[in-house]
Amino acid sequence: MSATTTAPDLDQLVAAASAAAPAMARATGEQRARWLEAVADALDAAGGELVPIAIAETHMPEARLTGEVARTTGQLRLFAAVVRDGGYLEAIIDHARPDATPPQPELRRVLVPIGPVAVYAASNFPFAFSVAGGDTASALAVGCPVVVKAHPGHLELSRRTADVVRAALAGAGAPDGAFGLVEGLEAGRDLVQHPAIKAAGFTGSLHGGRVLFDLANGRPAPIPFYAELGSVNPVVITPAAAAASAAQLASGLVGSFTLGAGQFCTNPGVVLVPAGAGLEDAVAEALGAAKPAPLLNGRIEEGFHAGLEALTGHASVEVIARQGEGATDEVPAPTVLATTAAAVVADPDTLLAECFGPVTLLVRYADEAERDAVLGSLEGSLTATVHAAPGEDVRALAETLSGLAGRVLFGGWPTGVAVTWSQHHGGPWPATTSIHTSVGATAARRFQRPVVFQDAPASVLPPALQDDNPLGIPRRVDGTLVVG
Amino acid sequence: MSATTTAPDLDQLVAAASAAAPAMARATGEQRARWLEAVADALDAAGGELVPIAIAETHMPEARLTGEVARTTGQLRLFAAVVRDGGYLEAIIDHARPDATPPQPELRRVLVPIGPVAVYAASNFPFAFSVAGGDTASALAVGCPVVVKAHPGHLELSRRTADVVRAALAGAGAPDGAFGLVEGLEAGRDLVQHPAIKAAGFTGSLHGGRVLFDLANGRPAPIPFYAELGSVNPVVITPAAAAASAAQLASGLVGSFTLGAGQFCTNPGVVLVPAGAGLEDAVAEALGAAKPAPLLNGRIEEGFHAGLEALTGHASVEVIARQGEGATDEVPAPTVLATTAAAVVADPDTLLAECFGPVTLLVRYADEAERDAVLGSLEGSLTATVHAAPGEDVRALAETLSGLAGRVLFGGWPTGVAVTWSQHHGGPWPATTSIHTSVGATAARRFQRPVVFQDAPASVLPPALQDDNPLGIPRRVDGTLVVG
Repeated sequence: MSATTTAPDLDQLVAAASAAAPAMARATGEQRARWLEAVADALDAAGGELVPIAIAETHMPEARLTGEVARTTGQLRLFAAVVRDGGYLEAIIDHARPDATPPQPELRRVLVPIGPVAVYAASNFPFAFSVAGGDTASALAVGCPVVVKAHPGHLELSRRTADVVRAALAGAGAPDGAFGLVEGLEAGRDLVQHPAIKAAGFTGSLHGGRVLFDLANGRPAPIPFYAELGSVNPVVITPAAAAASAAQLASGLVGSFTLGAGQFCTNPGVVLVPAGAGLEDAVAEALGAAKPAPLLNGRIEEGFHAGLEALTGHASVEVIARQGEGATDEVPAPTVLATTAAAVVADPDTLLAECFGPVTLLVRYADEAERDAVLGSLEGSLTATVHAAPGEDVRALAETLSGLAGRVLFGGWPTGVAVTWSQHHGGPWPATTSIHTSVGATAARRFQRPVVFQDAPASVLPPALQDDNPLGIPRRVDGTLVVG
Repeated sequence: MSATTTAPDLDQLVAAASAAAPAMARATGEQRARWLEAVADALDAAGGELVPIAIAETHMPEARLTGEVARTTGQLRLFAAVVRDGGYLEAIIDHARPDATPPQPELRRVLVPIGPVAVYAASNFPFAFSVAGGDTASALAVGCPVVVKAHPGHLELSRRTADVVRAALAGAGAPDGAFGLVEGLEAGRDLVQHPAIKAAGFTGSLHGGRVLFDLANGRPAPIPFYAELGSVNPVVITPAAAAASAAQLASGLVGSFTLGAGQFCTNPGVVLVPAGAGLEDAVAEALGAAKPAPLLNGRIEEGFHAGLEALTGHASVEVIARQGEGATDEVPAPTVLATTAAAVVADPDTLLAECFGPVTLLVRYADEAERDAVLGSLEGSLTATVHAAPGEDVRALAETLSGLAGRVLFGGWPTGVAVTWSQHHGGPWPATTSIHTSVGATAARRFQRPVVFQDAPASVLPPALQDDNPLGIPRRVDGTLVVG
């Protein structure tokens, strides 16, 4: 079994996806909801077979992977609910106004599937951001065929998951070609440049993502490339919070930045701590509870050690604590570093760079001016967190953090990403490349485009736009939103 | 008065826009609605002064320009209504579910302004797609400062319009820096690359737009570049329609493709006609009612004559009719060309290229297979139109045309674009560069990005997300859409 999809095989898969697109677009929402539920059921049933493969390929613990299967199938079922609700179609109807100046025709707008979608799987969530993950679920939900580029870090799992997905889709009546899988670097590059591919979703490194982003935009006919690339997820701890609960904050931080060996895109990598508040000692102590855990693959290992070296090599950086027992290159020691606000402002490129793995950098600030200077040096992130004392006024801070990230947390830690209607997993570059999310119900919007029908006969209108609203969906009619 | 904004002046304008952004984001929807209405009122009042300047600079007739002022102010008022409605905020609230596995935090999502927006004005709508046009209105509506790059084809009008806009915004209490104007090619290139600019809107040529699109995507931190670039707006006439109303179709087509000297982005440039149905003679006759009209500027003249030469130089192309009386290079003859489906399929790059000006190409098809082959050779368009006989089954055709364009017309002609809640003015590349529209209420979505607040104290929540819904806006709460 070769790990590289040949160009003719890729062409054939994309051609099959293209051929499936019209039937998928015509399928009712109820049909597509059932496809998603069939995939979810099949994955739940296959968990006992898939999880051991995932353990072998990713070195992740069983409990984490079992939980991730549940997250993945929950995600598929959320999109089934989204499709049944129908609000995702954004139906808008304006009746004709023949007496207006100039006269207005009848216009009826609905979102339609954008066409075949390429999905680039991530290494760090072998289920939830991989073959049957959120990108795949949201694309299938709105009626787009999907061709997944497997991550080389879990190829066997990808193949087996793809078998499960294909069989479930076929069993639920989805058209042939609705789903395909390709492997290999060349196939990944070819896929995003294939004329029949109309959009792409990607979760991975800034470097790899930028290469594909540039290819997508450099096409003769560019396509949207929705990528989640990199994020340091700043955390701000106020002096009052530090004074009130240093030990609790320290153990929360350690739990978050070492979760999954620090290989979460929402890992809190930069923590602004009030100088002299004793948080460093508390974090050093809390780190004693952490255990080194294996990194996912050689590429991540290399990146982590190079990033850590760049940080520790900086004159301003101190190593506060390393939990080194049993650490190796493959299973590195969770590490807490510290520097000053002044150093960060002077050299943000070095000190605020993402280091993907179990490390966090405490940045000591003396006052609000220093704190805000550090925040002003940050690029976009997926999340930003503030820990304040109860009742403390954090309005100005909330406004600043809203400008930096797509999710602002008040208390808590960013490494959990709930899959809900409102979730937004995105943020200003380099967190993501677009104004859309890759997690939560609104992720579906990425793979739809609007079409408006002008003065159409009733016979051509899709059910979403018919006068009697047979789907019972929310619609805006002559400017007024009407629920079902 | 120099026609080029210097780099320091541009920096200063963008800095002022950046400085205005937080106050604009904090302004209530009602405040922003009043800014827009103040601009609309001021433009209505200034029409008598502005229209003569526009006539002198663009050679357009007074009635057209007066109507365009009304369109522009109507657009500003539509966005005021959009802002007051509040649905554009896409507020979604998910209450906490502490008993879920894993427990879910409280999440509240809202759209916030993306930041300072660059707007590139078009030549062919000196009001409605220029300084105070739809891009500017939709950006201001959601709270984004705007820096407009003036079109050199109507510089004096741009400056005077900008004066009116600035004064109206200041009078209505908008912050300084909310609006700025720059001039010159270099300023245009610098603007889209300025780090403080967070998105851009553009209407213009494929060539110029592609240059700026590439600059926007090539930035260290890329930004969305929403551009409307080029469109041939195919029209399909069925044999039954041709048989029933050839003369009426011919005069409708002539009226549409010669409107504004053919300089509309929705100009019907390619018309699929049944072979031997007599439509060519009817169109030739109808062309007798057309009058040559001046083109907007030298660049468009050059492009038009080169495009026309490429078409007429093609061995398959016949000139069906030219309405040549009084024609010059600057005031060219409206021209009807014809070719065959086979020729188009063999050389779509030449025959289906947009030729911006008063020309249309009739493509004779013998049967549905030929018709569909031509449709399959087309790139994306803003519009696609079908003329069928009453009761004729056009479902398959509607599906094909929906894949080609963002607006599908059943009867009528594409050159009117109603500004309504449902309008979609966009389509697959090269019609536009995104899945969003530049006309209609949903154009505002381009300049917003989502932020979700996790477990936020009530004191930091914007009104849109507060429990008692003080704005009375539509929101989705725990998965259920609630109107006001």
